Amino acid sequence: METTVGTGAGLLRRAELHVSVSDPAAASMNFLNEVAARFPDAVSLAAGRPYDGFYTAQDIDRFLAVFRAHLIGQGRSEEQINRTLLQYGRTNGVIGDLIARMLAADEGIEVPAEAVMVTAGCQEAMIIALRGLCAGPQDVVLAVEPCYVGFTGAARILGIEVVPVPEAADGLDPDAVLRVAREVRASGRRPRGLYVVPNFANPSGVSMPVEARRRLLAVAREAELVILEDDPYGLFGLDDEPRPALKALDTDHSVIYLGSFAKSVFPGARVGFLVADQPVEDAAGRRSLLAEELSTIKSMLTVNTSPIAQAVVGGMLIEADYSLRTANRRKVEHYRTNLRTLLSALDREFGDDARLSWNAPEGGFFAVLDVPFEADEELLEVSARDYGVLWTPMSYFYGAGGGECAIRLSCSVLDASQVEEGVRRLGKLVRDRAS
Amino acid sequence: METTVGTGAGLLRRAELHVSVSDPAAASMNFLNEVAARFPDAVSLAAGRPYDGFYTAQDIDRFLAVFRAHLIGQGRSEEQINRTLLQYGRTNGVIGDLIARMLAADEGIEVPAEAVMVTAGCQEAMIIALRGLCAGPQDVVLAVEPCYVGFTGAARILGIEVVPVPEAADGLDPDAVLRVAREVRASGRRPRGLYVVPNFANPSGVSMPVEARRRLLAVAREAELVILEDDPYGLFGLDDEPRPALKALDTDHSVIYLGSFAKSVFPGARVGFLVADQPVEDAAGRRSLLAEELSTIKSMLTVNTSPIAQAVVGGMLIEADYSLRTANRRKVEHYRTNLRTLLSALDREFGDDARLSWNAPEGGFFAVLDVPFEADEELLEVSARDYGVLWTPMSYFYGAGGGECAIRLSCSVLDASQVEEGVRRLGKLVRDRAS
Repeated sequence: METTVGTGAGLLRRAELHVSVSDPAAASMNFLNEVAARFPDAVSLAAGRPYDGFYTAQDIDRFLAVFRAHLIGQGRSEEQINRTLLQYGRTNGVIGDLIARMLAADEGIEVPAEAVMVTAGCQEAMIIALRGLCAGPQDVVLAVEPCYVGFTGAARILGIEVVPVPEAADGLDPDAVLRVAREVRASGRRPRGLYVVPNFANPSGVSMPVEARRRLLAVAREAELVILEDDPYGLFGLDDEPRPALKALDTDHSVIYLGSFAKSVFPGARVGFLVADQPVEDAAGRRSLLAEELSTIKSMLTVNTSPIAQAVVGGMLIEADYSLRTANRRKVEHYRTNLRTLLSALDREFGDDARLSWNAPEGGFFAVLDVPFEADEELLEVSARDYGVLWTPMSYFYGAGGGECAIRLSCSVLDASQVEEGVRRLGKLVRDRAS
Repeated sequence: METTVGTGAGLLRRAELHVSVSDPAAASMNFLNEVAARFPDAVSLAAGRPYDGFYTAQDIDRFLAVFRAHLIGQGRSEEQINRTLLQYGRTNGVIGDLIARMLAADEGIEVPAEAVMVTAGCQEAMIIALRGLCAGPQDVVLAVEPCYVGFTGAARILGIEVVPVPEAADGLDPDAVLRVAREVRASGRRPRGLYVVPNFANPSGVSMPVEARRRLLAVAREAELVILEDDPYGLFGLDDEPRPALKALDTDHSVIYLGSFAKSVFPGARVGFLVADQPVEDAAGRRSLLAEELSTIKSMLTVNTSPIAQAVVGGMLIEADYSLRTANRRKVEHYRTNLRTLLSALDREFGDDARLSWNAPEGGFFAVLDVPFEADEELLEVSARDYGVLWTPMSYFYGAGGGECAIRLSCSVLDASQVEEGVRRLGKLVRDRAS
């Protein structure tokens, strides 16, 4: 029975709040966090956050000092520096020039500083790009599936429909994108964007071959899609093979690049960015850059990104001489060791069991193990309690069914011996359950 | 003629982007900023940002150190402190307890720390509260008119309709709220919230009498409205008269309090908060607090507020012994002097001209001058170029007409002699135009 409860009477019904619309992914993540909290001794092959050992709070002071010295070097007065750091500031941020230099040095992406918008983490960059592209109820976005829950969650907050494009073993198939885009258009909706993580995707770990990247750009042109390229893991390949960003291959402004510093600097800065160098023309024929147009949306979400947080990241970029690849060598080594350890431990544990298979990502934080049983929340709880190991059900990353017999394994937050121990514990669970 | 331009072909049409929906207020503000940039010698009675003279970049270092010492005092290890400041963190933030202490000390608002969510500025708090309350297309919010453009802009980003309630000379009339809420309900829509700035509102400067505040709370109960109370200027009354926040009078959880540190600490922290202590019940009868439920939305907007920025504000709160009223005495004096100077300058300049009138706010940054001619953008440009003074057309703060013959005067960013000079210049313009 529905009871009407006045809000003034001090009780809100959850079903009437937007959280009931926006939370499926968050509910899953909450379950995972809750299980992790209840079994603190379980080895976490679930957590995808970066390793804790790479930074200290003293870095904050140093990076701030470096950035201030940089401003002084540019001839700014004490008063101007105070204003830059402490007053309201430019909506699109104050380190766009430093980020543009980094993108040129590390990624071969050549864009003007004005095409860069600094955001409150990459999550806000997704929200802004989505909101900018999708203006009417018929506007939808395509997204690779399985998909990072931050993207589908962002779309849900804005009420934007996400149409999945299934990912293949070697990444997103451009022709599948074209097919889905045509179906969407035939149904009267308008596909505006396509979300993809070309390097070592979360959750699947897979990467797109370079030829597929080129073909995807051609498809974007043909289907009039803006590609939303998310690249948080690009630095962390197992080898030094160049894997060009879509944005680096993008000769005709088909790509909005979504950038994160959470892995390459640290998460606590909550600084991300987007690159949107698309020319935009208004009714009078005046031109601007998409990043400049999107500032309207940014200003209504968070006004501008904290210049203090920007200064911390800016100081890091300056200290690194604009190369995060160079500055992150130690981190790269750590994550390489962990992923290699994960893959060889899987081989040792499951190599002679034909009922199991897993993929072999070329880098990043994640791999996927297919198992001959349902890997659901019930099993996750059993796994944490009785086997002391946590993982993520792949079903979390599908919108309407999929991934029921697969688990995501993450190796970022551990050290190598913990990864080995985690896989050993997982082996026991799997053998007990599959027998 | 409509030409179809493929996005891949490198050109986006502005009319097809959401910025064309979301930008009327931003377009106005852009015009204002652009005029200000073209006439840098004009005295700005337009800018509403805080005065620059109250803080230096060294404060950042000190506040960070104070916050770190606080964590050490709580027995946190070096490793834990690093994790708190640099890793992903709790969605609702890490200084909720400090903010709850400040609210108790300064405002008599007694809430548990769990009812506080730290946000990326007050702007994000508005977005989160709006999104949380409005789940379906029939859900609308009421807002005082004239209205702060950040609120109407936030609603536009989310596609939520804002129904205006006209403000009277002595602030929002609770019975007007009740009437509009009933009309909305009779039309088949559901009024979910009401936005109001009870103290020294932006843009009007007016405040609600205490009796009206109590009556508004009764109306909220009756009309099943959640009040969104925005209080950025509450500290800056002309006298020490207590002006209780709606939240301090709120005995039955009718109020979500939206908090800003932009004026009381500094804008560059980009830290705000919301207080949402409403109990929420799910279908199974489980209870939680609204702030906890809203974390789902926060996580999909910005994940969590930069703990570095939170640490800066936290350090300030600790140093101030949790009283921003005490810590802001110098600022309070500055803004009092400026507002008194503005009001006496208006009296001197226009006191014997019956065609002009203005209000006499009891505090804050703003006052409104009614003039016997249209105060539009064309006149603003003339004013900046030929008279050397900037102001804000009040029409910017109305959704569908209103305020055409009124201007908002702001006195926050200037010193007293600049305020006097600004009003002198304004006097010339007004006399030339009104004659």
